[in-house]
Amino acid sequence: MTPAPIAPPSRAAYEAARARLAGLAQPTGALGRLEDVAAWLAACQDACPPRPLQSVRAVVLAGDHGVAGHGVSAYPRDVTAAMVRTMQAGRAGVSVLARANGSDVEVLDIAVDADFPDLPPDVGRHKIRRSSGAIHREDALTPAETTRALEAGDAIAADLDRDGTDLLIVGDLGIGNTTPGAALIAGVLGLPAEEVTGRGTGVDDAGLDRKRAVVARALSRAGSRASDPVDRLTALASADIAVGVALMIGAARRGIPVLLDGLVAVAEALAADDLAPGAAAWFAAGHRSTEPAQSLALEKLGLVPMLDLGLRLGEGSGAVAAVPLVRAAGRLLAEMALLSDLG
Amino acid sequence: MTPAPIAPPSRAAYEAARARLAGLAQPTGALGRLEDVAAWLAACQDACPPRPLQSVRAVVLAGDHGVAGHGVSAYPRDVTAAMVRTMQAGRAGVSVLARANGSDVEVLDIAVDADFPDLPPDVGRHKIRRSSGAIHREDALTPAETTRALEAGDAIAADLDRDGTDLLIVGDLGIGNTTPGAALIAGVLGLPAEEVTGRGTGVDDAGLDRKRAVVARALSRAGSRASDPVDRLTALASADIAVGVALMIGAARRGIPVLLDGLVAVAEALAADDLAPGAAAWFAAGHRSTEPAQSLALEKLGLVPMLDLGLRLGEGSGAVAAVPLVRAAGRLLAEMALLSDLG
Repeated sequence: MTPAPIAPPSRAAYEAARARLAGLAQPTGALGRLEDVAAWLAACQDACPPRPLQSVRAVVLAGDHGVAGHGVSAYPRDVTAAMVRTMQAGRAGVSVLARANGSDVEVLDIAVDADFPDLPPDVGRHKIRRSSGAIHREDALTPAETTRALEAGDAIAADLDRDGTDLLIVGDLGIGNTTPGAALIAGVLGLPAEEVTGRGTGVDDAGLDRKRAVVARALSRAGSRASDPVDRLTALASADIAVGVALMIGAARRGIPVLLDGLVAVAEALAADDLAPGAAAWFAAGHRSTEPAQSLALEKLGLVPMLDLGLRLGEGSGAVAAVPLVRAAGRLLAEMALLSDLG
Repeated sequence: MTPAPIAPPSRAAYEAARARLAGLAQPTGALGRLEDVAAWLAACQDACPPRPLQSVRAVVLAGDHGVAGHGVSAYPRDVTAAMVRTMQAGRAGVSVLARANGSDVEVLDIAVDADFPDLPPDVGRHKIRRSSGAIHREDALTPAETTRALEAGDAIAADLDRDGTDLLIVGDLGIGNTTPGAALIAGVLGLPAEEVTGRGTGVDDAGLDRKRAVVARALSRAGSRASDPVDRLTALASADIAVGVALMIGAARRGIPVLLDGLVAVAEALAADDLAPGAAAWFAAGHRSTEPAQSLALEKLGLVPMLDLGLRLGEGSGAVAAVPLVRAAGRLLAEMALLSDLG
């Protein structure tokens, strides 16, 4: 079940991109961090200059979480199912951002605690279970469910690759999901609950205390299993998060670059790179969320986010908001004049 | 010559936008700073939700500067004319960003130290002079030139308004232009040369020392004229910067919102709000540049930039890179589901 290490993006294309950037008709380094983005994209595509992005896809993995019944969120659990329907109707935040930025969004019910007879059956084609376990009291998943979730994530990546996806965003949707997200980051980084727990969608002080206690009990309950990349998902994560981990690994293995969103996506990315070393070289960070664990995880991954706008919507929204910067970086590398053209 | 104060954007539309944002199907405040952008856009349009942006225009004002002959820049002065041609050919950084982000770019020769018989005559239709004066030794402009520059800026704004421009970016192009830009900010804020002078396109330590000395001598030479909003332009700025100041005022007066770029644009914005109080309410900040004076001026204007990517290209590029965020903010306000829709 342990994936092999992931081959890195093209070093030759990366070096060619850096050389071309140095020759552009601009003061040296004047494009700032867009130069890093352009070189990363060229390396992922093994092409300098990179090709324009034709198919940017956000896949939003929806699931409920047992911890949501224990006061860790400012919102009731039914919101998850309501937002799946809102997203399917194209009216969620990420739906609007994707339309504005030329991207596609698909929402998948991985573990929502509801059925959707009113929605197309495809929405549930990778459903693992209804809700994941309350991680401070029980494992999130059975080992068999973890295996199925990892297989589902890889199957989604295979489909995206077949469809020609050239940039992937993994979105999250589920009341309470920053609690397993933070626990997963704590598990990978070996950090205590106090350092990883934030306010999520906006819990008050009492809610933050409860959330910290839930994360601490979950970590204590998981014990040494928190240091194994697969057992950790079974004990501390959720079905939707396990699918996200495998989706990111599957994308990296197939050469599809991934633009990371907020806490849950970055938790998945960190776990993905732990399970399949080298995966992180295929990831870039779309935005900095307000959650402390997201910054800790990004630092570990060596990634600097493109946007820092105080977004905390989830859904992949921060990454979709950053898509125009990735497109622009690639086009700058491809279309700007060279110093040698100026004469 | 002193313009009247500028009427503010619509308070009613601003309040309506804030109320609608509070009712969106998302955790309260989850769109972060995009909510501020959306409310500002609604207020400027006097419409909630705001209309989609149809005509985003970047006007790049090109000019040479006498100080460029005194070691304040890492690049020779001829680069200005070469970059005017590159921009006219659609191959400058801002040209590429504008194509990627659905904006138009026009470059105007305001004070380039060259003629352009090879370019369409429209490029020079607002030309004031060849190069502006070396501000540490002489005034940048004659008082009559300042008047003509202010009239030219207003004429450009009138044309843009007639063409239906709904978001304006004022770009800058000219070797040495961060020196008068920094001097202008120092003049408005009453700051010494050390606090406002940065490396521009990348001067070395000796160049930075020379640049500081030039700014200090210019401020000392201008004396009390640095505290008058028009005399300050004559003494310390340049023809292209004076046009930019009036263009921003003219846009604000006509209800066209302005997205600010880097040091030179923010210097123009600060001077515009000083000359025509209230203009700044029509401005938003596209990006944070690497120049210290830009951050000082933004703070004074009460503006927080959308992007912070270490860009220092000029040309309006940082603002054009931020255009998708403005578009997205408006569409989120218009198209997201309301909490009351969730049932």
